[in-house]
Amino acid sequence: MQRDFCLPGGFAESLGNDIGNVQPCISVIAALQAAFRKAGLPVIHTKECHKPDLSDLPTAKRNRGNPKIKIGDVGPMGRILIDGEQGSDFIEENAPVAGELVISKPGKDAFYDTVLHEYLIRRNISNLVITGVTTEVCVQTTMRCANDRGYDCLLVEDGCDSYFPEFKEVTLRALVAQGGIVGWTCKSDKILAFLNSL
Amino acid sequence: MQRDFCLPGGFAESLGNDIGNVQPCISVIAALQAAFRKAGLPVIHTKECHKPDLSDLPTAKRNRGNPKIKIGDVGPMGRILIDGEQGSDFIEENAPVAGELVISKPGKDAFYDTVLHEYLIRRNISNLVITGVTTEVCVQTTMRCANDRGYDCLLVEDGCDSYFPEFKEVTLRALVAQGGIVGWTCKSDKILAFLNSL
Repeated sequence: MQRDFCLPGGFAESLGNDIGNVQPCISVIAALQAAFRKAGLPVIHTKECHKPDLSDLPTAKRNRGNPKIKIGDVGPMGRILIDGEQGSDFIEENAPVAGELVISKPGKDAFYDTVLHEYLIRRNISNLVITGVTTEVCVQTTMRCANDRGYDCLLVEDGCDSYFPEFKEVTLRALVAQGGIVGWTCKSDKILAFLNSL
Repeated sequence: MQRDFCLPGGFAESLGNDIGNVQPCISVIAALQAAFRKAGLPVIHTKECHKPDLSDLPTAKRNRGNPKIKIGDVGPMGRILIDGEQGSDFIEENAPVAGELVISKPGKDAFYDTVLHEYLIRRNISNLVITGVTTEVCVQTTMRCANDRGYDCLLVEDGCDSYFPEFKEVTLRALVAQGGIVGWTCKSDKILAFLNSL
């Protein structure tokens, strides 16, 4: 839940996206984070961003999208999608607390070129509850790559959003088709009720 | 283009999928393969399958889907999704010719646990033309992971199919949204015309 994807004046809005569509999941994710923390379960944060020297930025990615504002250029919230800059950091409502793993990832897939898989193996974690934005880009890509690696994934229906409501709706159905080919989805109230019963 | 996903009596049909929906792309892919070969461009084949000892099959994947026919069990075309069995091999129309790279992949993503990325780097290949089934599962997962690795990807609109036409249609639009966030799509006639002009 990065500022550049959720706040007015961020990178996403500069690309013409309606950031109003990704506001509903913020409070849902905050409630889930609080419940996971209370239950002693790990909360992991991922952010799409690149090293300040752009060494992990593919040329094809830098040339994509809006030619007026490229990744690495200076925008209204610091350099666009650069690790450590204000815009690439998390919004206040869903920010990490001390001790939580933060993954800086150069791709949409949170497993590519990161330590996420190794971290999860070390902690014996095999089940993931997934939230975030945007549903059909980073969220589903990460869920698909988690599924390939053998994780059982549960995507929170009201804990993810997209700039394009149709893409979200169809993505949720495609992920669970054919007997849960990528995993499952449910509403947050079910998860919260379970966590509160522990 | 594996028998188990395209032919009557295969694994996909046993899961309740309408394999009629994935027939149209077969002749398109065959035409593209012929044109690529004539132009001296590499054709790479991927197949989702597992080692006979199931050592690369995640428990979560084996337990998914139809509990009556699991991966590794004996089906009408040999052991389901096992490398070397008849069902996991390619349909005749789109089969490899001598010298072409065949990637056996345990996941949906053709880059996960395979040599595909290393092969492409060695050949200085940076642009991929992607075809196959099914659009919203293996095809888009592989395209998304290729994009993360810096490849420019072009998905052939009539060279991919899905058991669910709506999933194909929306996936194509989601891949090219936001200025080509995962890449681009076009019809095969454009590609064939270009290859024939070489």
